Amino acid sequence: MGTNTIDDLCINTIRFLAVDAVQKANSGHPGTPMGAAPMAYVLWDRFLKHNPSDPKWPDRDRFVLSPGHASAMLYALLHLTGYDLPLDEIKRFRQWESKTPGHTEYGLTPGVEATTGPLGQGFANGVGMAIAERWLAEHYNQPGYEIINHYTYAIVSDGDLEEGVSSEAASLAGTLRLGKIIYLYDDNDISIEGNTDIAFAENVAQRFQAYGWHVIGPIDGMDTSAVESAIRMAQSETSRPSLIVCRTIIGYGSPHKAGTAAAHGEPLGEEEIRLTKERLAWPYDEPFTVPPESLAHFRQAQERGKLWQEQWQAKLEEYRQAHPDEYQKLEVDLCGDLPEGWDSALTDLFSAADKPVATREASGRAMNAISKTVHAFTGGSADLAPSTKTLLKDHGHYGFEEYYGHNMHFGVREHAMGAIANGMSLHGGIIPYTGTFLIFYDYMRPPIRLAALMGIRVIYIFTHDSIGLGEDGPTHQPIEQLMGLRSVPNLVTIRPADATETVEAWKVALERRNAPTALVLSRQNLPILDRTTLSSARSLRHGGYILWEASATPDVILMSSGSEVHIALDAGRQLQGKGIAARVVSLPSWELFEAQTSEYRNQVLPPEIRARVSLEAGIPLGWERYVGLDGVVVGIPRFGASAPASVVYEKLGLTAERMVKEALGLLQGRNT
Amino acid sequence: MGTNTIDDLCINTIRFLAVDAVQKANSGHPGTPMGAAPMAYVLWDRFLKHNPSDPKWPDRDRFVLSPGHASAMLYALLHLTGYDLPLDEIKRFRQWESKTPGHTEYGLTPGVEATTGPLGQGFANGVGMAIAERWLAEHYNQPGYEIINHYTYAIVSDGDLEEGVSSEAASLAGTLRLGKIIYLYDDNDISIEGNTDIAFAENVAQRFQAYGWHVIGPIDGMDTSAVESAIRMAQSETSRPSLIVCRTIIGYGSPHKAGTAAAHGEPLGEEEIRLTKERLAWPYDEPFTVPPESLAHFRQAQERGKLWQEQWQAKLEEYRQAHPDEYQKLEVDLCGDLPEGWDSALTDLFSAADKPVATREASGRAMNAISKTVHAFTGGSADLAPSTKTLLKDHGHYGFEEYYGHNMHFGVREHAMGAIANGMSLHGGIIPYTGTFLIFYDYMRPPIRLAALMGIRVIYIFTHDSIGLGEDGPTHQPIEQLMGLRSVPNLVTIRPADATETVEAWKVALERRNAPTALVLSRQNLPILDRTTLSSARSLRHGGYILWEASATPDVILMSSGSEVHIALDAGRQLQGKGIAARVVSLPSWELFEAQTSEYRNQVLPPEIRARVSLEAGIPLGWERYVGLDGVVVGIPRFGASAPASVVYEKLGLTAERMVKEALGLLQGRNT
Repeated sequence: MGTNTIDDLCINTIRFLAVDAVQKANSGHPGTPMGAAPMAYVLWDRFLKHNPSDPKWPDRDRFVLSPGHASAMLYALLHLTGYDLPLDEIKRFRQWESKTPGHTEYGLTPGVEATTGPLGQGFANGVGMAIAERWLAEHYNQPGYEIINHYTYAIVSDGDLEEGVSSEAASLAGTLRLGKIIYLYDDNDISIEGNTDIAFAENVAQRFQAYGWHVIGPIDGMDTSAVESAIRMAQSETSRPSLIVCRTIIGYGSPHKAGTAAAHGEPLGEEEIRLTKERLAWPYDEPFTVPPESLAHFRQAQERGKLWQEQWQAKLEEYRQAHPDEYQKLEVDLCGDLPEGWDSALTDLFSAADKPVATREASGRAMNAISKTVHAFTGGSADLAPSTKTLLKDHGHYGFEEYYGHNMHFGVREHAMGAIANGMSLHGGIIPYTGTFLIFYDYMRPPIRLAALMGIRVIYIFTHDSIGLGEDGPTHQPIEQLMGLRSVPNLVTIRPADATETVEAWKVALERRNAPTALVLSRQNLPILDRTTLSSARSLRHGGYILWEASATPDVILMSSGSEVHIALDAGRQLQGKGIAARVVSLPSWELFEAQTSEYRNQVLPPEIRARVSLEAGIPLGWERYVGLDGVVVGIPRFGASAPASVVYEKLGLTAERMVKEALGLLQGRNT
Repeated sequence: MGTNTIDDLCINTIRFLAVDAVQKANSGHPGTPMGAAPMAYVLWDRFLKHNPSDPKWPDRDRFVLSPGHASAMLYALLHLTGYDLPLDEIKRFRQWESKTPGHTEYGLTPGVEATTGPLGQGFANGVGMAIAERWLAEHYNQPGYEIINHYTYAIVSDGDLEEGVSSEAASLAGTLRLGKIIYLYDDNDISIEGNTDIAFAENVAQRFQAYGWHVIGPIDGMDTSAVESAIRMAQSETSRPSLIVCRTIIGYGSPHKAGTAAAHGEPLGEEEIRLTKERLAWPYDEPFTVPPESLAHFRQAQERGKLWQEQWQAKLEEYRQAHPDEYQKLEVDLCGDLPEGWDSALTDLFSAADKPVATREASGRAMNAISKTVHAFTGGSADLAPSTKTLLKDHGHYGFEEYYGHNMHFGVREHAMGAIANGMSLHGGIIPYTGTFLIFYDYMRPPIRLAALMGIRVIYIFTHDSIGLGEDGPTHQPIEQLMGLRSVPNLVTIRPADATETVEAWKVALERRNAPTALVLSRQNLPILDRTTLSSARSLRHGGYILWEASATPDVILMSSGSEVHIALDAGRQLQGKGIAARVVSLPSWELFEAQTSEYRNQVLPPEIRARVSLEAGIPLGWERYVGLDGVVVGIPRFGASAPASVVYEKLGLTAERMVKEALGLLQGRNT
């Protein structure tokens, strides 16, 4: 590299903003910014189509920093190119309520496209974004109107490529031939325990070729012209995703830490910073210095961005004239609104006269009704569509050189499915859903947590929700997964009791624009509750409600969710036969119930009534919230067993008789 | 394939036992057994070193059926070769308390080496077994005494290879050059949603070459001689793991279902079975027929196995004479006992006079003490050893062509780490531990659940256990993970309050021979509790205990775990200053506490004292178990935030002042 060129100056500006931010915070990761600044600079300076004044411009290129711990580098780029991120925020790196948290957070910092940090997630998010881009392009572009046409770029690290989720996503991206993915692999050979040789000796380039990727390099990732040519080469390949292997040096410039794990996760230290500035011929002792020439160069991004977006806007206006119907649909898809009357097809989908139906089946029918009015509704299953009932009929399949279909085939890859769905939602234009068995929630917890943290709309369909799946046995019977879903902040979990609650659950899920929703559904058939004699299923949106009661002043409250509500109802009626007044409460969604007024909640669960029995086909832990110290929680404090569903229910004591017995015990003061 | 040879007869015996079992159960997966029976037969008939009469013989070859849904095939093999699995058990396939559950379960069926079913797990378990084999061989084999010398075989499916966990494990196995792994890949192109082309078009052979594997094939996986040569070729390669790509036809023989997803997960049906028997020239209409020639052939395995084990036993006896010290150590390692006095080095490791120390640091010191006496104690971290403090000093590193070390480097692969640790434990001879941040529990839930289900000893070290990690922010701050651990049946979770509890926690963990334990540890320093004025840390093994109280008849109970116990203690003393008698209960392990007598539990938490306040840096959900409807749960019902730890604690209201305020409120009847 030459010295004192504008490129070097700009690259060092990024480096030292990051280094100084970490030093001031006395916490953070300087090493990656120092090594990856050149590639990031080339990408942002010569390729990235974006408009710092409008971070939400729909046709911008997407850029994901998968190693979110290198956040300071991205903050530097955002500040320098003119996003609404003042230098003061960089000085408040990692402080309370700053816009510059330790790892990049979507929604907090303008220009941050995804919350990253847990490794591998950003890699897969980018695949989701590229899927969405291609899907929208297929649906809306017309000859002469490339309304949707952008790249998805990412920087990915060794750690990202070691995580299995990136393998899953890469394999799918190769299968789908997503040619507008361009990833820069920051190949620096260092991870926290030392040289990657100790655990990661594989040939990454060959592995990605095996996935069907176009692999470029290894190149010198700190040589700006090499990076530039490589990105051009990647752009010219349109039918395979590209991975550019960029050899870099972590902590580049630091005399004592460069190329070692010591550069990764702690401040360089004042003295080492001084030496590094000397080594890189950076003449500014003062921290957070941005040389005016550097700033002026970076800020050209504003003018470029403005122009790009104006041209796009003009084109869009022509499109509106030429293709008014498509334009309108595109607008709806992009803004994420539900079209008026979208839920009309959901009205009276089921009645008590119908035969018993599994809630997974009811869900499938609701989904197909929704797909008739909500165009953006798109998703798929992790190789379980026939079982999760998530197929949208007559809506095609995404893939096979055909990007129009609404039905995604994620393969046996729950983890990537979740992370890809996040990317689809983050991109915009799609309301994504995923499908698998509830037990496999365990495989996809990290992306679901991130969806909740980011506040994005993704709908998770989890079927085979209990021991009710029967013979497949304990490896497939969820026990602790339902409570696990309930434990995630900002996630709403709904476990409907029958087909009518299932329809209402779908309405809630779609209307939650800024947060994810999990639907927990039965494999087994369930009677449709007769709403002419029971409370309306519309009460589902309160999370919990009185389904039935023998008297407005009950002796005992019976509570349940999902398939076990029918057991509670049976128990309530048995108790009535014994002259005991029970109230049966359906609690399909704890989060929705908690969001109600305390007045409402006290109406459903009057504090003075302490004789309470809950029954659910899952762990007891958690139910004490509603049952208290004086009631009885009936649950499954063990793993399940392989046998026909009815046998497992019986053997594990999940019966109306058990509930009756516990209620009687409480009322006779035996169980206090 | 010829017809009517003994091979064909035996292969068809396996096929039809599986087909008939599925049909009788009216549930299960016939397709894989029908396609994979030839490769399984060749492996078991001509290679597998095992002794059906002693499924625990330490030097047997290990065989893992990673697609656990093909369980009926393994049950057939076990029955036919003479394990203690009568035909009647196969007839009771998937029934309550049979030894033939829907997916293979370790501990339930003799000869089943691992519980499989969730895809990818078995693949990684095998890697753990091979790691253990090599480790033991390096430690104990002597010239002329190959006491430990066996292969690890597995059958793996498309679904296994799509899951990220198998990618992680494969990359590590390649790096470690584990030459005695031989996996047969049942490459049948079919998964549940149809042809694997829709989601899995990668070049698997090339991918495994990239990992450093020796790839053989594709071969015709239903041609016995091709399979036989391939396995021989794999055995001759000693420095790379081998993958044999076996092309097969799912549901082979079924005229209407072979080669389709319809063969996968449901019974063939009576009529289709009839046609299949016809097609495969199987003359027995009667289900579960085992032709005598077939049985006789299979049962030769008993004689072979007996001979193998006798020879080994004789060799071992010579070894005992020649290397008495090694023999003794080997015996201890293999039986899994802790040597007498193993915990002596843990006595008085810390005292209140010491400076505050993070429990992760205390754990690291305890581990190093343990490693002096417990030879089998071996494990590692997912690229976080410097942070998790899990390095065993002077115990070497496993890898680098050196298999003697106790320190494993799993790479950034939490999921595979968990599944590999399961394999190490299942193999025997090693007491494995893993290390990562608590937040990454989410990446490794599936194998932890399986360890709990299998009842095997694995110790999970989770550090950086709360918002106390500070600046890394919400992506790295666990909120719901601690309660998540508590929700897994058969797993004991311990969150010690200080160094002294940490030492006791390690004792409990090692002594739990038949179940896993999770240790949840702080990043931040914590004062060492003065046990001369407080209860002894030995009470930790009761799970919960009265740490301190102002009076034996307290007005209010304050409860907490881990780092927040110090806050509760502070609050208790503040209340004392206000003339209110508080009891402070440390609850490091809910599972251990629940295992106590109700008498003990009522002593610690007297049912009549309803003024109760809990405080923990995690979700409130779950604490109602001990707090009831009348107390106050202080927790974090949201995600964390990036800021210095003390600021985050303060801003989220996790303070002694808050606890005091809530206690006063309860006592004044304001919060009821």
